[in-house]
Amino acid sequence: DSGALQQVARILNGGLSPSDIAHLLESSPPRQRALLWNLVDKSLEGEVLQYLSDDIRSYFLSKLNAQELATIIEDFESDDLADLLQQLPDTVIQEVLDTMDDQDRQRVEEVLSYPEDTAGGLMNTDTITVRPDLSIDVVLRYLRRHRSLPPMTDSLIVVNRRDEYIGVMPITKMLVSSPSATVREVMDTDIEPIPVTMSDTQVATLFERYDLISAPVVSEKGKLLGRITIDDVVDVIREDADHSLMSMAGLDEDEDTFAPVMKTTKRRAIWLGINLITAFIASSVIGLFEGTISKVVALAVLMPIVASMGGIAGSQTLTLVIRGMAVGQISGANVAWLLNREFLAGALNGVLWALVVSVAATVWFGDPMIGLIIAAALVINLIAAALVGTLLPLFLKARNIDPALAGGVILTTVTDVVGFLAFLGLATLIYG
Amino acid sequence: DSGALQQVARILNGGLSPSDIAHLLESSPPRQRALLWNLVDKSLEGEVLQYLSDDIRSYFLSKLNAQELATIIEDFESDDLADLLQQLPDTVIQEVLDTMDDQDRQRVEEVLSYPEDTAGGLMNTDTITVRPDLSIDVVLRYLRRHRSLPPMTDSLIVVNRRDEYIGVMPITKMLVSSPSATVREVMDTDIEPIPVTMSDTQVATLFERYDLISAPVVSEKGKLLGRITIDDVVDVIREDADHSLMSMAGLDEDEDTFAPVMKTTKRRAIWLGINLITAFIASSVIGLFEGTISKVVALAVLMPIVASMGGIAGSQTLTLVIRGMAVGQISGANVAWLLNREFLAGALNGVLWALVVSVAATVWFGDPMIGLIIAAALVINLIAAALVGTLLPLFLKARNIDPALAGGVILTTVTDVVGFLAFLGLATLIYG
Repeated sequence: DSGALQQVARILNGGLSPSDIAHLLESSPPRQRALLWNLVDKSLEGEVLQYLSDDIRSYFLSKLNAQELATIIEDFESDDLADLLQQLPDTVIQEVLDTMDDQDRQRVEEVLSYPEDTAGGLMNTDTITVRPDLSIDVVLRYLRRHRSLPPMTDSLIVVNRRDEYIGVMPITKMLVSSPSATVREVMDTDIEPIPVTMSDTQVATLFERYDLISAPVVSEKGKLLGRITIDDVVDVIREDADHSLMSMAGLDEDEDTFAPVMKTTKRRAIWLGINLITAFIASSVIGLFEGTISKVVALAVLMPIVASMGGIAGSQTLTLVIRGMAVGQISGANVAWLLNREFLAGALNGVLWALVVSVAATVWFGDPMIGLIIAAALVINLIAAALVGTLLPLFLKARNIDPALAGGVILTTVTDVVGFLAFLGLATLIYG
Repeated sequence: DSGALQQVARILNGGLSPSDIAHLLESSPPRQRALLWNLVDKSLEGEVLQYLSDDIRSYFLSKLNAQELATIIEDFESDDLADLLQQLPDTVIQEVLDTMDDQDRQRVEEVLSYPEDTAGGLMNTDTITVRPDLSIDVVLRYLRRHRSLPPMTDSLIVVNRRDEYIGVMPITKMLVSSPSATVREVMDTDIEPIPVTMSDTQVATLFERYDLISAPVVSEKGKLLGRITIDDVVDVIREDADHSLMSMAGLDEDEDTFAPVMKTTKRRAIWLGINLITAFIASSVIGLFEGTISKVVALAVLMPIVASMGGIAGSQTLTLVIRGMAVGQISGANVAWLLNREFLAGALNGVLWALVVSVAATVWFGDPMIGLIIAAALVINLIAAALVGTLLPLFLKARNIDPALAGGVILTTVTDVVGFLAFLGLATLIYG
């Protein structure tokens, strides 16, 4: 009833921050989500949209017309606005840009001109710049003329007359310096500005490695274009990390946890279909050995062990390599060492578990020969798993295929095929 | 030769930042790593240690005696020092604490008294505090008396006479305020301080949700204890995200990519052993149906398809739920909806792919009955996968078992057992 709804609306708009509201929306099934969204105060909608994940945001965006959009985005920072616009159809983007004043439109168009996953797509154009020959005292008086400073302003950016980057002036450093000192005397010049074309993952690495709060972004010619702030970098870190986890299960990192049934079914269907093809490939390998299996049914009982152990061992190597590549630890210089280590670890574990499995199989089926066959197959498959787990992600990445997405499927296909082929093939040589 | 070594040492200590050196060490196989470490300048060792991951850090720490340690840690912040000490044996911790002066020791012992994965373990004790009745002008003059401010100081903390938290004073706000205004007039009081017992994951959520750079930490009674800064929170975010990815492959998030062969072999062996048990469980289910398989060998050929499709579908649900739990989206209020959605998506995809597989199986083996059996088994297994994938992580978490680590193993055991049981069981009813 409407009394209860009004109460929810009061709590929503009074007590919760826009990010809390976004979290609540993301944690709600579709019907409640739509209901809650209708209760969100018009003046908060814009900020709430900024905190929503892509999937859910584009859903709500699609419900707004250009006029409503224009009102909502009034207070957006240029990078957030560019993010949001990129999710809209081109005609709507143009309509929205038309409602903006010249200066704002220019700033947004600038950010829009860079791909979303580069420094240019991450940056804000709202920088506060100073000249190197000013005194700290003058800078402080200049700052006081502002009503507020842009969020996450931990430093001012020092530029020359041609707007070229010279250095940064940390505010904390300014506060402990003599007011009569010049910017040039106090500023840091050892911080390399970020090229506008750098990938967002590299930007995140720089922020993590140097504990940055904000960093200047420059054009190829050294002209200051904007700055990147840690809040946007944290989103990149979260998304990159989520990406590996979700991709390995064939999911998208933007996946809406509470997507409706049909959307979920469709997305999952594709992944299941791909895996069905690989399952049929494995089955067709088994099919080659129907004759042997019909003679020795124990083979059918034991064969999943060989395939499954290969899959597990391979996934461990694959995950380690994918993580290592994501954090930039793996390069041409150390691949050979890694391959050798994985080979040895795979072989050792192969021998260890082959002993265990062969004893168990011999006891179970009263046939030492089947124990020997499964032992050999296990060693072969664990070594294959180690080699494929190491080389496959490197191979895929070199071909611009996402290893987290494609790696697992290809790997288990290989370990299934090698496992069945080795086990049933050896058995056919002996029993056939 | 020593000439080349000296050159490497010069590059290492001259051109690279401590975090760069740490990254280089983490990206090197053991022998090069030891060699590089020996070349690192003594004065940089402390900072480099701070940036290393736990595994590698404790290795290098174990090579130092208490005296060397005491020299290295002189300039550490209290939270980093506490982190580092927690990796040492108790006797060494005591020795190191004994070398410190009273004030430093007290600060470190304070941080050491909180678990590493709480706000207390994350915080620094180096706060700059001010009283509410001071004027901005006085605060600015007070700050100027410092030689430098602690890193990541974006705000001062306002406390009363009893050191109880009152509010925060953002530096950017101070810079645009009238010098004659009082702290009380300018400060923000709507920021809730972080309780010292809050988990580090919750702290990270707060930082992400409110775009914080630093936040005050208080005791149960509201007394200010320290502050947490975004650089440490970024590490928590990275580790939490890595944790899910690595655990699902039975790896540790601190896993050294270049761990030596024997260490790798041992760690992997445990995981392979656990999975071997589950593989034997699946095999023993197949073993129940040896009679049927020996009559219809096609069953052995097709059975991996049923098990594998169940494993894939289940992993997708499991990953989605684990991610949803990690970001706090899933609660008692929406589990029922989620379970229902997964059930429906599982059933729909079950029916879809059952049609495809049954046609393929019928054509392959020229037996429509085997097509019907595999279709039914597939639907049953995909529904089981959906239910287990949703409920298992919630069940494990309620019992304080890490769902990312144990979830996958248990899930695939269930989908293997249900898959083989449904497929071979139905076949036995019909062909048996």
